[in-house]
Amino acid sequence: METVAENRSHGGMQGVYGHASRETGTDMTFAVFVPEHAPGEKLPMLWYLSGLTCTHANVMEKGEYRAACAEHGVILVAPDTSPRGDDVPDAAEEYDFGKGAGFYLDATREPWSKHYRMRSYIEAELPDLIAEHFPADMERQSITGHSMGGHGALTAALRDPARFRSVSAFSPIVAPSLVPWGQKAFPRYLGEDRDKWREHDAVALIEDGARHDHILVDQGTADIFLGEQLKAHLLAEACEAAGMPATIQMQEGYDHSYFFVSTFMAEHVAWHAERLKA
Amino acid sequence: METVAENRSHGGMQGVYGHASRETGTDMTFAVFVPEHAPGEKLPMLWYLSGLTCTHANVMEKGEYRAACAEHGVILVAPDTSPRGDDVPDAAEEYDFGKGAGFYLDATREPWSKHYRMRSYIEAELPDLIAEHFPADMERQSITGHSMGGHGALTAALRDPARFRSVSAFSPIVAPSLVPWGQKAFPRYLGEDRDKWREHDAVALIEDGARHDHILVDQGTADIFLGEQLKAHLLAEACEAAGMPATIQMQEGYDHSYFFVSTFMAEHVAWHAERLKA
Repeated sequence: METVAENRSHGGMQGVYGHASRETGTDMTFAVFVPEHAPGEKLPMLWYLSGLTCTHANVMEKGEYRAACAEHGVILVAPDTSPRGDDVPDAAEEYDFGKGAGFYLDATREPWSKHYRMRSYIEAELPDLIAEHFPADMERQSITGHSMGGHGALTAALRDPARFRSVSAFSPIVAPSLVPWGQKAFPRYLGEDRDKWREHDAVALIEDGARHDHILVDQGTADIFLGEQLKAHLLAEACEAAGMPATIQMQEGYDHSYFFVSTFMAEHVAWHAERLKA
Repeated sequence: METVAENRSHGGMQGVYGHASRETGTDMTFAVFVPEHAPGEKLPMLWYLSGLTCTHANVMEKGEYRAACAEHGVILVAPDTSPRGDDVPDAAEEYDFGKGAGFYLDATREPWSKHYRMRSYIEAELPDLIAEHFPADMERQSITGHSMGGHGALTAALRDPARFRSVSAFSPIVAPSLVPWGQKAFPRYLGEDRDKWREHDAVALIEDGARHDHILVDQGTADIFLGEQLKAHLLAEACEAAGMPATIQMQEGYDHSYFFVSTFMAEHVAWHAERLKA
């Protein structure tokens, strides 16, 4: 692991780090904020998965999480959204497929399957790297994300509720199998068999029996993607049908941007911190 | 004035606006955050002047001011740092002169004098536009800024303490006449007569008798520009020699970036709000 940059901020250290990933077969970059802490102290951690077109940098610059993470003593880790580099196949004309659009899955179809392994990267490789290099208590992890990253957070937590004590999302894609973004990406990454899509679809996972005790979602009512791509009501209906409590909040007048995410970031960090310290 | 973008954020509205400026003779863009407020209510306002290479967007994206402005009910206005456009003379190879480097002065030398009129733009034209279009109480203004913008804030407030109730700065250029950035820009914008530079130099203004009762400066000790360009100690010495109280805080380990600015932004907004509401 190499240090790309470290800047003191809000009493802690905002870092950007790079490493050669065995899962993606590429160099990968990620951001970590470590609050001020006592020597030897291990801190709980929050994963933040970003949305389409983003890298680690969008939330690092616009997410306004550091004050809250410093207040609550929570490490925040922000990975990239796909493999990168000239060797990685891409769909350069498409913002919603290929680079910047890894959908947090392991692709099984050529030519994507070689490098597009973001699920294994997030679930297996990067946690080991974090545990080795940062003062993170890996027994206390939670996860959040925005849009495609909200999809990534919800599906990761529903598949492994024992690992993630709590999961939240900002304007998540709750049922990618049913909307254009997912219906475009899943056949190419995973093939046409829709049964293979279900473990990458929060609503389908709940229908299939997955459960999580701590789910928080904020969704802006003025989000231009709400009606066609995000469909928060499908998550609310799935949770209700499953008898699973979840807090899904419609926020009047907010859109899909980081102006929205940053508004509710401090509340999400505090909500996770309460559960990480319970 | 035209609306470029408006996004709901932290309960208020973050807007970006454009207009044809009579002072610069160009189209100009600026950002305004208006917190939630009662119908008809006028709010105090804080100017934020940005540093070299910046536009209105840097602080809007990375400054983390909206939560504090919403809490205290303060409007924040962030102008651009120079005229823009193909007709504007520039020094394209130089990040510290020309576009993005207006130094908040009215240039008197050709070819700069036609468009580089940021002092009159900030002091005369833009306030009228703000008063006309936003719920701002123009009797309650304060000003802050970063680096070159800290220079702009300090000099504007020292020249007109009646207009600006308080002034703060993040890593300001306190004595441009004495450092490379100013010694490069001032001769080209203002000519070789150093007497003409003094009203654009906070330390010189204080030496010449200017005073302000409410000055707050934060400066990182790990700022790579501190020793050669910023020289916070010169401001401290000038204030002491003048018998003028000022709070100048050295912040251990912080650099010149927005990771530093955002750390102390909430404190600055609260400090201004206290004075704007006194």
